[in-house]
Amino acid sequence: MEPTPILDRIERPEQVAELSFEECRKLSSELREVIVDRVSQNGGHLASSLGVVDLTIALLAEFAPPHDQIVWDVGHQAYAYKLLTGRKDQFHTLRQYGGITGFPKQSESPYDAFGVGHSSTSVSAALGLLRAKKLKGDDGHVIAIIGDGAMTGGMAFEGLNDTGHFSENLIVILNDNQMSIDKNVGGLSRAMADLRSSAGYIRAKNRVEKILLKIPLIGRPIARLLRMIKTWFRLLIRRNTPVIFEDLGFQYFGPFDGHNIALLKKKLEIAKALDKPVLIHVATQKGKGYKFAEENPSAYHGVSPFDKNVGVVPSDKKTFTNCFSDSIVRIGKKYDNVVAICAAMMTSTGLSNFRKNMKLRFFDVGIAEEHAVTMAAGMATNGFVPVVALYSTFAQRAYDQMLHDVCLQNLHVVLALDHAGIVGADGMTHQGIYDISMMLSMPNVTLLSPCNFAELDRMLEYAVSDANGLVAVRYPRGTLSEILEKIPSSDGIGPRVIREGKDVAILALGVMCEQAILAADILEGKGISCRVIDVRCCKPLDVSAFTALLEGISSVVTIEDGVVHAGFGRYLIGALEEEGKLDAFKHFVTLGVSDHPLIAGNRKILLEKEKMDENAIVETILGF
Amino acid sequence: MEPTPILDRIERPEQVAELSFEECRKLSSELREVIVDRVSQNGGHLASSLGVVDLTIALLAEFAPPHDQIVWDVGHQAYAYKLLTGRKDQFHTLRQYGGITGFPKQSESPYDAFGVGHSSTSVSAALGLLRAKKLKGDDGHVIAIIGDGAMTGGMAFEGLNDTGHFSENLIVILNDNQMSIDKNVGGLSRAMADLRSSAGYIRAKNRVEKILLKIPLIGRPIARLLRMIKTWFRLLIRRNTPVIFEDLGFQYFGPFDGHNIALLKKKLEIAKALDKPVLIHVATQKGKGYKFAEENPSAYHGVSPFDKNVGVVPSDKKTFTNCFSDSIVRIGKKYDNVVAICAAMMTSTGLSNFRKNMKLRFFDVGIAEEHAVTMAAGMATNGFVPVVALYSTFAQRAYDQMLHDVCLQNLHVVLALDHAGIVGADGMTHQGIYDISMMLSMPNVTLLSPCNFAELDRMLEYAVSDANGLVAVRYPRGTLSEILEKIPSSDGIGPRVIREGKDVAILALGVMCEQAILAADILEGKGISCRVIDVRCCKPLDVSAFTALLEGISSVVTIEDGVVHAGFGRYLIGALEEEGKLDAFKHFVTLGVSDHPLIAGNRKILLEKEKMDENAIVETILGF
Repeated sequence: MEPTPILDRIERPEQVAELSFEECRKLSSELREVIVDRVSQNGGHLASSLGVVDLTIALLAEFAPPHDQIVWDVGHQAYAYKLLTGRKDQFHTLRQYGGITGFPKQSESPYDAFGVGHSSTSVSAALGLLRAKKLKGDDGHVIAIIGDGAMTGGMAFEGLNDTGHFSENLIVILNDNQMSIDKNVGGLSRAMADLRSSAGYIRAKNRVEKILLKIPLIGRPIARLLRMIKTWFRLLIRRNTPVIFEDLGFQYFGPFDGHNIALLKKKLEIAKALDKPVLIHVATQKGKGYKFAEENPSAYHGVSPFDKNVGVVPSDKKTFTNCFSDSIVRIGKKYDNVVAICAAMMTSTGLSNFRKNMKLRFFDVGIAEEHAVTMAAGMATNGFVPVVALYSTFAQRAYDQMLHDVCLQNLHVVLALDHAGIVGADGMTHQGIYDISMMLSMPNVTLLSPCNFAELDRMLEYAVSDANGLVAVRYPRGTLSEILEKIPSSDGIGPRVIREGKDVAILALGVMCEQAILAADILEGKGISCRVIDVRCCKPLDVSAFTALLEGISSVVTIEDGVVHAGFGRYLIGALEEEGKLDAFKHFVTLGVSDHPLIAGNRKILLEKEKMDENAIVETILGF
Repeated sequence: MEPTPILDRIERPEQVAELSFEECRKLSSELREVIVDRVSQNGGHLASSLGVVDLTIALLAEFAPPHDQIVWDVGHQAYAYKLLTGRKDQFHTLRQYGGITGFPKQSESPYDAFGVGHSSTSVSAALGLLRAKKLKGDDGHVIAIIGDGAMTGGMAFEGLNDTGHFSENLIVILNDNQMSIDKNVGGLSRAMADLRSSAGYIRAKNRVEKILLKIPLIGRPIARLLRMIKTWFRLLIRRNTPVIFEDLGFQYFGPFDGHNIALLKKKLEIAKALDKPVLIHVATQKGKGYKFAEENPSAYHGVSPFDKNVGVVPSDKKTFTNCFSDSIVRIGKKYDNVVAICAAMMTSTGLSNFRKNMKLRFFDVGIAEEHAVTMAAGMATNGFVPVVALYSTFAQRAYDQMLHDVCLQNLHVVLALDHAGIVGADGMTHQGIYDISMMLSMPNVTLLSPCNFAELDRMLEYAVSDANGLVAVRYPRGTLSEILEKIPSSDGIGPRVIREGKDVAILALGVMCEQAILAADILEGKGISCRVIDVRCCKPLDVSAFTALLEGISSVVTIEDGVVHAGFGRYLIGALEEEGKLDAFKHFVTLGVSDHPLIAGNRKILLEKEKMDENAIVETILGF
């Protein structure tokens, strides 16, 4: 790596303000160098972090955190901010267990004003921070930085609406890179594109007056008249901005070049001095400064480790997402009433091929999980079977829409929940460990968890063609182990024995079958014969199927990759007790994620720490 | 009641189209007469239903449901629609068990295109309906009617944004009554107020040109030039509308008088013919035609039965909401770091007095539960203790914000969950029966359930001053029975015996203590001595406190007013089993709401049907 003399000098963020513009430009390059180097080794969010390096420098040059508070929306773009706010020496631990997290996190640093991971929360959080400051008589500033993708999330609108009403001097920076993870959609993004394409527009307006003044005789009176009319057309006059923000009560500035640090500083200085909410619209380039990422920002949104001189090479290992991608195309071709819906994550959820093949039946609704689910309910009402592909953690946004719009009306909507379970390095805010408990409580729900690709394909077809109500199929990120791959597929969705045994039983959900089988192997070596049951369906519970499969067994362990205290195992215990069948068992122990925020770390480490790996299962059973 | 000759003639909604304008006006009066008469007897949503009578007539005159689909946002305004679409003969059963529901409901009528109860879903649902129609080659229209209050919900924005992008000819009617339940807040509502106050604005614009044309010599060229400039100022030209909608890709019409049926019909006809999304802005008066409601629409939003000649007389029976109202004022005065937040329901949640006393520490954020909770998290970050007052059912909207923004960061935010448990006549979409299961799964949660006013007051103070993390206090709608009132308050939040007994135990949550005590009385008559334990705190569970209180008891029944299969009782069973303490009990039965949508009906009937009343408890215990 190139030397980073300027970054090396910066121990405290205040020092950024002391740099010359030339030094700022150099710092910008150094930061990009460090980020590319580190992300190429640890994996992480590259393109968006590179895009806001210059903006980060301008912010730190103009504001003084932690007294001024900076709230990053989504937060995957905060690497440069972390490097400049006291974490450059730990930056090599980025996204590793016990290391610097990939997102802002309050407990990590006083400079991280508000923790984040999900989209569109920044305006609300920043407004809360600001209102608290005002009440305390603290004159610090609060700045929210939100992407144009995140701006399509309804929550951002709610925050802007509330801010504008009260005329608090919140500073919102709209970081416009014309991307969320995929290309942006929606009316708003089109309006902003219009604006950008008429970049010369503001200049043109001034030119009108100049031209008028040159027209002999009538030029000057027309110009004067024009100014008069302006007063009449008071509202009209404002139409040199995406007035949506002005309608909401914000003073709008922009769009500006988000890579011109001097210009950004000047604009931030103006915004700081105003006594009202301000929205500064800056245009940035995702992946800026790393040519591979500039050329293909989507591919460099979130990446696994790669060779920085070669760029990301697509892996040939098949993932659950790839499997879903193939299945949904197959199923879409077979059933012409299937439609697919995603929330700004077409590529990440594996819907690109569906779109290629069945464009009219594909809908990307923007970062808007709530709308996605209710829109799906509308389509289901009129006879289609929508498959809504979301990451498990982002589906949390649509809790009420699942319950109120789908389940209570018993409409047939399929949820393909990717990244279910432990997600690893993305950490706390992204763990897919709440979906089971979330959906167990709702009526008219079927919740399926395949252990491998063949099962995912089969369950997805079952969800579309045989089930009713809200049907969720949850599957993890990543690839498939050989152990799981070997498990044969079989009919139905009920529980099934995947390894015979007579002394104890392990009920394993989805890919946790791997740990169950490994544990059974170890126990076999110790002379304990262990029956492994693939749960497959959490809800509705076929209690008699479970008791039949547990015939002759008195000790049971359940293992699931979700929160244990409100998950499948406990749900089963409750149902068994309700039917008076729990007494038949001497031991019934539930394993899963404990009741605490689960931090980042690779899956193996987290399974070990949470006592969910094969050794923990063995230990539990030996304890009987 | 006055005779209703025109309404009597209408058997099918198509007949509305055949009426003369004079007959439409008469029908309008008749509908209002019937609605006031019925709501005064059954209770219900009066002011908003009266406001849209004329709009409903215009819609049915112009569109042909069920082929055309009409989606009402929130749905409490659909009484006239129900009367005109085949339900006038059952209208006397409005909001009663087994009767016509107070909201649109798919299973009730093919004319109810989409069920509803929560706010801001209509645009999403309607877009889904329309997309399905287009795919099927069905040329029917889809119309969403949404209030200006509901328009502040982020989900509506998500729906508009997605619609505008695709240029589908969705018709959205913005029903602007300047109210949600209380007066509206937010930048958007201010922008719309600006527009209304410049009503003569559009006329003025046309006048400019006329005046110009009269100016000798230079008038005509100026006018021509103006038109030229218009092309340059293309974007400017549009600024005679709340462009927020045009920015989102909608063609905007309005504002129009929402009580002028002829005008409305004409505008709907134009909208129908367009090939793009249209937003028609109509101004209506809440409570229109019933003078008491016109004068005080807030008081006539949702009402209990009243004398229609006298109007609603405020009840002098104290409710849990009144109690919260007093407590929060007391607590706000004692702790100056307490702030109160509501989502467009200041009066309904009991925060009016807090606002009167501590205006600077009160925040109404609009119909925006998501934003409310995250904004609260921001304030908590900077040292305040926000109390967010929401109805239990509406808190579902903020599931992700509770989990992602409050719990994962372990911020101290208090939720005052009113209308928890069975809500009665509002029915399925409003039941507060999911909050327990929703919050049990989240880390850093304290979930409290007071059995009476004294306990509510004490728990609220505990939540503010002694607890940490997300602390929810859930309490039901309505008043207090004498039985509950007599239960003395005591320190702490742990479980406590409120009636001694030695044979069996009933663990009762919150106001279910009443049914537990009544059951214990009945059982005493049968020679069974029943210990009643007031659970008070669902989470965190103090398992040893429960086992200590259950000393010597082998049969236990839990009773809670939430879904039973994922509720407190099952949670306790799981925890007892985990600690190997469940074996000590011969019977451990959980009672609560079954796993199905719970329809409308008064609380007594629903408790009976759900086997949650004292008789059900007695029967369960006699079954041991």
